[in-house]
Amino acid sequence: MSPVILGVDPGSRHTGFGVVQGEGNAILHLASGSINPGSRPPLESRLCQIFDGLSDLIRQHCPQAIALEEIFLATNVHSAFVLGQVRGVVLLLAARSAVPIFHYSPLVVKKAVVGYGQASKSQVQLMVRQLLGVEMVDQHAADALAVGMCHLFHSRWPGASP
Amino acid sequence: MSPVILGVDPGSRHTGFGVVQGEGNAILHLASGSINPGSRPPLESRLCQIFDGLSDLIRQHCPQAIALEEIFLATNVHSAFVLGQVRGVVLLLAARSAVPIFHYSPLVVKKAVVGYGQASKSQVQLMVRQLLGVEMVDQHAADALAVGMCHLFHSRWPGASP
Repeated sequence: MSPVILGVDPGSRHTGFGVVQGEGNAILHLASGSINPGSRPPLESRLCQIFDGLSDLIRQHCPQAIALEEIFLATNVHSAFVLGQVRGVVLLLAARSAVPIFHYSPLVVKKAVVGYGQASKSQVQLMVRQLLGVEMVDQHAADALAVGMCHLFHSRWPGASP
Repeated sequence: MSPVILGVDPGSRHTGFGVVQGEGNAILHLASGSINPGSRPPLESRLCQIFDGLSDLIRQHCPQAIALEEIFLATNVHSAFVLGQVRGVVLLLAARSAVPIFHYSPLVVKKAVVGYGQASKSQVQLMVRQLLGVEMVDQHAADALAVGMCHLFHSRWPGASP
């Protein structure tokens, strides 16, 4: 059984996604990218785009789990509120698709992927590309792949702990 | 054309709803109540219950608009985040159902229904019951009915401005 994980880096303007699979001693990169509703459409349309985009990925890849990067909450109330709205839509999708959802803080993700909780975004990006053997991915996709891999490591998948 | 409005008072443990219709010089009370997932189930299940409950109401009553009470944001970051998640689900539902959504601050709702922006919850409750000719409704339902009526008044429906 090779677990497929959908990693999600939620954001109202850019939501990154990354689908990874633990296969023997390797981690396979199945898909990654970002859903980019931008800042122009009303929020409800953006949420719809994110919901539909992630729904398509679930239909296509049938992940055993969704891994979500916990949003860093020490920002202001308004941005917590906006990000909460995106996260609500991802949680709803998980529940409706009957895919269990797991949450990881940025620190835990960085520790799992880079080995160092204070790693920079570019270090995460570099490790993601090395571990998956992929070319440049955008930052939202890299963060989503990182949280997907983090879940693989944490669910004690036997291979490829960095 | 008698507009039907679905008012929603979003909350992760209790989401109030109220369906009202402007009919001649009266406002009709079509339905009200609350969806109460409680605090025990995981948040994703609660969001699912809220989404499904409101979906049923939309299917049943075919509202022309959804009116949402804007959440008071001067609380802490954590509660803004939690409430944001519920609001995201309501916005998603509005977009997927192609029902336009309108937002009103508590102050505007109170002004519209009671005539006084600093009105207490019990004054709102009383006016809701008087205007709609209904018996006691729970506080979440009362708040949802109030925002639904507020939208009727603001959309320049010719009758019953208090």
